Amino acid sequence: MTLLSRRPGSFGGVVLSRFQRPGQVIVGGFAAVIAIGTALLALPIATTEGEPAGTLPALLTATSAVCVTGLITVDTDPHWSVFGEVVILLLIQVGGLGIMTLATLFALLVSGRLGLRARLLAQAETKTLHGADLRRVIRRIVVFSLVSETVLAVVLSLRFALGYAEPPGRAIWLGVFHSVSSFNNAGFTLWTDGMVRFVADPWVVLPVAFAVILGGLGFPVVFELLSNWRRPRTWSVLTRITVGVSAALLVGGTLLFTVVEWQNPRTLGPLPDHVKFMAGFFTAVMPRSGGLNVIDISAMRHESWLATDILMFIGGGSAGTAGGIKVTTFGLLAFVMWAELRGEDRVNVGHRRVAGPVQRQALTIALLGVGIVAAGTFTLLAMVPHSLDRVLFEVVSAFATVGLSTGITPQLPPPGQLLIIVLMFIGRVGPLTVFSALALRERTRRYELPEERPIVG
Amino acid sequence: MTLLSRRPGSFGGVVLSRFQRPGQVIVGGFAAVIAIGTALLALPIATTEGEPAGTLPALLTATSAVCVTGLITVDTDPHWSVFGEVVILLLIQVGGLGIMTLATLFALLVSGRLGLRARLLAQAETKTLHGADLRRVIRRIVVFSLVSETVLAVVLSLRFALGYAEPPGRAIWLGVFHSVSSFNNAGFTLWTDGMVRFVADPWVVLPVAFAVILGGLGFPVVFELLSNWRRPRTWSVLTRITVGVSAALLVGGTLLFTVVEWQNPRTLGPLPDHVKFMAGFFTAVMPRSGGLNVIDISAMRHESWLATDILMFIGGGSAGTAGGIKVTTFGLLAFVMWAELRGEDRVNVGHRRVAGPVQRQALTIALLGVGIVAAGTFTLLAMVPHSLDRVLFEVVSAFATVGLSTGITPQLPPPGQLLIIVLMFIGRVGPLTVFSALALRERTRRYELPEERPIVG
Ligand SMILES: [K+]
Ligand SMILES: [K+]
Repeated sequence: MTLLSRRPGSFGGVVLSRFQRPGQVIVGGFAAVIAIGTALLALPIATTEGEPAGTLPALLTATSAVCVTGLITVDTDPHWSVFGEVVILLLIQVGGLGIMTLATLFALLVSGRLGLRARLLAQAETKTLHGADLRRVIRRIVVFSLVSETVLAVVLSLRFALGYAEPPGRAIWLGVFHSVSSFNNAGFTLWTDGMVRFVADPWVVLPVAFAVILGGLGFPVVFELLSNWRRPRTWSVLTRITVGVSAALLVGGTLLFTVVEWQNPRTLGPLPDHVKFMAGFFTAVMPRSGGLNVIDISAMRHESWLATDILMFIGGGSAGTAGGIKVTTFGLLAFVMWAELRGEDRVNVGHRRVAGPVQRQALTIALLGVGIVAAGTFTLLAMVPHSLDRVLFEVVSAFATVGLSTGITPQLPPPGQLLIIVLMFIGRVGPLTVFSALALRERTRRYELPEERPIVG
Repeated sequence: MTLLSRRPGSFGGVVLSRFQRPGQVIVGGFAAVIAIGTALLALPIATTEGEPAGTLPALLTATSAVCVTGLITVDTDPHWSVFGEVVILLLIQVGGLGIMTLATLFALLVSGRLGLRARLLAQAETKTLHGADLRRVIRRIVVFSLVSETVLAVVLSLRFALGYAEPPGRAIWLGVFHSVSSFNNAGFTLWTDGMVRFVADPWVVLPVAFAVILGGLGFPVVFELLSNWRRPRTWSVLTRITVGVSAALLVGGTLLFTVVEWQNPRTLGPLPDHVKFMAGFFTAVMPRSGGLNVIDISAMRHESWLATDILMFIGGGSAGTAGGIKVTTFGLLAFVMWAELRGEDRVNVGHRRVAGPVQRQALTIALLGVGIVAAGTFTLLAMVPHSLDRVLFEVVSAFATVGLSTGITPQLPPPGQLLIIVLMFIGRVGPLTVFSALALRERTRRYELPEERPIVG
């Protein structure tokens, strides 16, 4: 008997019958894991001091970890004990893989089979094709994540041990923590200044950036690239747009940050030229939505903040660990706009036509994102004395589950912290899923069971 | 022989044959009027001092007047002579009516008939229905504008003469100038502090607000309301959306500004309660896109700036004197989003279905607007030391031809002023028209000849 069994009368059947919609199950699952994480982090043993952390810091940290965001009000390393940090790491792993993916895996491990309902739920979260072999997909997701994290952990641990003379146990812990944090785009570090100390170290900067990109491409794209990277002509629309838009944003972002910050004495200014490019690249990777930093974000120029806002809002690939409206949504809308400007009736990507409903779905995701960010920014502006620059940055960072910060989150009053928590939750679960869970939808929509359409959002 | 005659060999025919697209004619027409205005304002007699104003102030002022925006770098009254102010007034009137409307009127007056090409051009600008009696439409636009402006001028002149003891000649000039400026949503005043001195005077505040709303609804909606206001069930989709969204934004905006600024000692704070509501209403009207102010915009709270940014970006009605992406575009996108969230395949407004191409067009207008504002804000941020609040406000104000300002435009370096000029021009002519003029479009699109579709943008 499993959580996801559909046998009537079973525990799973009872649980599922209370939730009529996949959205409610996903929202409920994330909320349950956050509640468990909050309870664990509120224990006295979770802090270094041995005093209970308090509900709000525990809730914010647990939400930030499960939603793989990284915005925090207390510094991870001095504040939380090893127990607390292990809890955070597990929450990141659960949140990164996704609640339904884990539940499905659990069901598979226990019973070896899945009911139709569980299949639909897992498909809604992993956004796999209808009819695909779900069991194989889930297994590949988990194996791929663990293998990638292990490789990165080994590289980082060796570097911390050999390059920074960390004792072996500490080096391994640092390697594992930052590997899981990077691959899952979680944005948590064990250093209070982020990764600024490693700005000139390619053995840390490049593997971490690579892990963030890999984890943020989204599993469907990664698997297609793994099996088909030599034949770009055969790629799906999803993979074409994800790879193309990602490459354009990474190249453009690297140039932009490098040029804008080149002479800024508080960021790239004092660095050697080749390090400037590497740091510019890292800074361009992190908005999608790694959330780590090798330069002081609060010291960046205002136009760099705006560029970061835009990159964060766009985010990374669909059905992975990245947040934002997703590069596919952004790319599709760009194609739609271009077709309209050119006076063409159809929207073609490569040699395939993009269906009308997908265009409308992309539009809805982008508009919902704009609306949520605008409402969140307005509300937070009314609560704090900070200017739009910083408030918008923090709101977009929360909504897009990025975790970069100009430093205002720890200073926010409790209602402002609650707003950040809500934004992180909506951002990770997805506005459409939240909306569907609110039961405002009349019918089940096809994009909960995608067919031949590229994934957006 | 007229400018718009299509007889081959005629002057008009030669002029038109050089421009293959309606967009090029409209862009060229606006540019020509701006050039003439700049030349006139650069004359020594245009300034009070009798010294030439210089090219950049003359160009910015002429562009601001023709594009009915109101952003300025020199104060209108002390700087410009009566000659200069008359030039500005004429430029506002030409810009407000629209270049093609005036040219068509001219052609009608001279020849009494219009060629097919001229008809298409005028339809592209006035966005009238294909097959409608264009001559009658143009005549109604001009008569309606002049009658409205005359009535408002009389009201204001009487008030200035009786309530403020202005001498008759001065009272009439003030009345005429502010009537034309209000009805055409031009944002120019002859007082350096805007209309702050009239904050408690309903005889000035309410007529001016009413004129801005009337002029900003757009002529097609005004005419439908004039002939059919008793029967809302018969209204077109255009009128339904324009009236509904406008009413919602005005009520919501009034409440928002009144509440947010209620205790602000530098804006509404010192005023009596009933005046607060009136000033809140005026402040909610002006972003669409009147551009006048009865409270100090630079002293408003940051969240009021953000709300103003959003209202300015949305703007007013299509095919009138207002700017922004237009309430129809905003309303249509909201309907599309709502239909998608509800899981409905069709987008219905009232009892009519909104065609797919119109949805795509609305999306394109909104995305182009976001892109232009983002690019303009980024560029301006890189030029000046101001924060995002002020820079974004000024860029949106220019693009949406509003003219409200937190005060940074006069301080901008010349490249920044040129950017404001370009934004005003694109905002007034319309990004789609500019794009079409750039000849990037393959085919003539149907929305240059609208059929049964609601107007967006
Ligand atoms: K993150
Ligand atoms: K204006």
